[in-house]
Amino acid sequence: MRHLLDFSGWDRAEVEALFATARAMKEVLSRPIKQVPALKGRTVATVFFEPSTRTRISFELAAKRLGADVVSFSAQSSSLKKGESLKDTVLTLAAYGVDAFVVRADAAGVPHQVSRWVEAAVINAGDGWRAHPTQALLDAFTLNEALEELQGKKIAIVGDILHSRVARSNAELLGILGAEVWLAGPPPLLPRRGGFFGARVTANLEQALAGADAVMVLRIQKERIPGGLLASEADYRAGYQITEERLSLSKPGAPILHPGPMNRDVELEGTLADGPRSLVLAQVENGQAVRMAVLYHLLLGRAA
Amino acid sequence: MRHLLDFSGWDRAEVEALFATARAMKEVLSRPIKQVPALKGRTVATVFFEPSTRTRISFELAAKRLGADVVSFSAQSSSLKKGESLKDTVLTLAAYGVDAFVVRADAAGVPHQVSRWVEAAVINAGDGWRAHPTQALLDAFTLNEALEELQGKKIAIVGDILHSRVARSNAELLGILGAEVWLAGPPPLLPRRGGFFGARVTANLEQALAGADAVMVLRIQKERIPGGLLASEADYRAGYQITEERLSLSKPGAPILHPGPMNRDVELEGTLADGPRSLVLAQVENGQAVRMAVLYHLLLGRAA
Amino acid sequence: MRHLLDFSGWDRAEVEALFATARAMKEVLSRPIKQVPALKGRTVATVFFEPSTRTRISFELAAKRLGADVVSFSAQSSSLKKGESLKDTVLTLAAYGVDAFVVRADAAGVPHQVSRWVEAAVINAGDGWRAHPTQALLDAFTLNEALEELQGKKIAIVGDILHSRVARSNAELLGILGAEVWLAGPPPLLPRRGGFFGARVTANLEQALAGADAVMVLRIQKERIPGGLLASEADYRAGYQITEERLSLSKPGAPILHPGPMNRDVELEGTLADGPRSLVLAQVENGQAVRMAVLYHLLLGRAA
Repeated sequence: MRHLLDFSGWDRAEVEALFATARAMKEVLSRPIKQVPALKGRTVATVFFEPSTRTRISFELAAKRLGADVVSFSAQSSSLKKGESLKDTVLTLAAYGVDAFVVRADAAGVPHQVSRWVEAAVINAGDGWRAHPTQALLDAFTLNEALEELQGKKIAIVGDILHSRVARSNAELLGILGAEVWLAGPPPLLPRRGGFFGARVTANLEQALAGADAVMVLRIQKERIPGGLLASEADYRAGYQITEERLSLSKPGAPILHPGPMNRDVELEGTLADGPRSLVLAQVENGQAVRMAVLYHLLLGRAA
Repeated sequence: MRHLLDFSGWDRAEVEALFATARAMKEVLSRPIKQVPALKGRTVATVFFEPSTRTRISFELAAKRLGADVVSFSAQSSSLKKGESLKDTVLTLAAYGVDAFVVRADAAGVPHQVSRWVEAAVINAGDGWRAHPTQALLDAFTLNEALEELQGKKIAIVGDILHSRVARSNAELLGILGAEVWLAGPPPLLPRRGGFFGARVTANLEQALAGADAVMVLRIQKERIPGGLLASEADYRAGYQITEERLSLSKPGAPILHPGPMNRDVELEGTLADGPRSLVLAQVENGQAVRMAVLYHLLLGRAA
Repeated sequence: MRHLLDFSGWDRAEVEALFATARAMKEVLSRPIKQVPALKGRTVATVFFEPSTRTRISFELAAKRLGADVVSFSAQSSSLKKGESLKDTVLTLAAYGVDAFVVRADAAGVPHQVSRWVEAAVINAGDGWRAHPTQALLDAFTLNEALEELQGKKIAIVGDILHSRVARSNAELLGILGAEVWLAGPPPLLPRRGGFFGARVTANLEQALAGADAVMVLRIQKERIPGGLLASEADYRAGYQITEERLSLSKPGAPILHPGPMNRDVELEGTLADGPRSLVLAQVENGQAVRMAVLYHLLLGRAA
């Protein structure tokens, strides 16, 4: 692969090769000296047109632990104000000799555009509602650790499906890995048509949870929901909050995932968030290993 | 020690061991190549909920000179806006494999809270009015260089005592080192009761300065003083500005310290600030060595 | 040289020695591992009192590729708000052991002031309308590559000359290198007297372009032009935009430079910006090599 924009063109072997590298990186991260200088002398630029400190830090740290130099560009502090176009910014950074661009934007398609302008590798760190492939990779890697294998497993994804790039990328990737994906949420927050890669869509939470091997809870993205789509937070809770009781419909011990940051006691009961079935911190930890693996594969090729 | 939150539980031997390491670090800093890769592969996160570029840079540079990777999180640019709690932020960074957290907050107790959530070492870089232990360590290290020993020495601390975490931490640490600490300021800026670790408190500046071995001048923290506490800056100057004349009450040549940033000609006569008795730049320089020593002790243990 | 503030005191041999080092750095930058650890253990501080992400990143990356530690200070996030003076900030950073200061300010003369306060090397990264010497060095280096030699060459610089530190520094440096510099723009944007180092000044664009070996187009700095100086952007375009047609007055194939960021289709026809005569990306790329060379010469001396 030359870029990681979404999973179009990926197959299961590609994902498994990446997971193998991620497992090697996870072993590195378990040492006191969490470093392997594979990317020494390479340069990674984070280019964020939408603020997200945790995702930015996760990539920066992954790059640094591989020995790369890191530069950070964010639209707030930028000279975009001075009339500089996105294209000029990207071409300028490319001319500095940047080897990989990590791009986040509030508009869908920006990372694709960037990939057409530069020779460097481009990693989509989230574009609008469209895709967030490294999040999906770390989710699938974590699920794979917990369930041993994803083929034929039923995964329920619950929440604001319509506005969620995490739901889209997970549906795409989990489909490639052979899982059966169910997307559940209140009708106004469900997709009206397509774009969900064969996942089943339902407003019936019980149907999605019944016999599920794992439950992924999405953040209610208040800032993205146009006024009026959701009657009230209380209504959401009443109908779709994942609670201990509702979770009893799924397989015993089915793990819970959440991409963070969490609205505690909105989309997920706080006790569940901190309980033994929560994989939330494993997701964050695996995010480091997976992002290191992605940088490694894109810049050095597949063999770890 | 596992954390540096304040000096509770510290004894003189612990401080002296740290100062020995700081002296070794100071020697490193005198070389053209100011680096010793003791913390290679370790990760230090600065987490600032109150802006302070100079303190942040001081810690970042100390960590980098020890070979550590550094990530910076500040509440302004953070997703705290998106409803992420302090706890989620800290747990996320911890799951990335951060080895030491350097925490500054405008509310007292935040670094203590953080230390209860994570396995990593926590360094308090200033919390509200409560404590600023690395500032006190660099002050005491600098005083120790100037006076050779602190046992029995009279140290006057002058200014807005009430709102000063620097005064609190210095009173605590200098007490451990056997110094006699006097805290002087206008009555509304003096503590009404306790919390100053046995230091003497007085509104009588002359009493505090009489025979002092050293004088520490605090910044008048305009942004922290509730309106009306201080009649006027002119009144403050008339009564408490440290001038050449007032300083004649102290021991001949008694050095002057100031934690910076200074309001020139408010709390301290400008000519004194730049004069031969000022240790202000020695404090800043020693801050590097002391912060390197703190990181070293917390992450690798005492022996330098 | 101890500092790079402007080109006063420079001669052609000094510039040529720097260009020789820049060529060596450019070779390093053509490798997959773009790093030469000549400045390992040295510390470079960027101190920006005027935002400019691209220039800041260019210097940071140049320093990192030489193995230096980098710290960044910008006035926005700084404690300058807390009444800290510029001098205190600079002396604090110097006391941390900073070896080189890269200073940008919206007021002329700030980098000179800084150079009087510290022992460290000071690089002017742009001060008001006065000077931007690393931009001029990368422009001259790029012109030198394109034209083989600058002695006797006619270089036209077009745009808002009056407010341009780029025009001033280029006029100074290109003069040292023996070029004939013409400065052209609408009368209100031309200097009324002096300060342009012997360059010829004209409102007659045709005269400047006639037979020019190269054309440097400046950005119309809307944010710096006092209201009323320029009738309208449309008028500017009509009279001074560099178009294919106007460019036919210059030597065949004469290259076009622009310091960026560009206002496409204002000062320069968009097709020219992306056409074969544009050296814009070569300028950016050479900027890395030239800035590495400047850091190298200032911190280690001339021999590369």
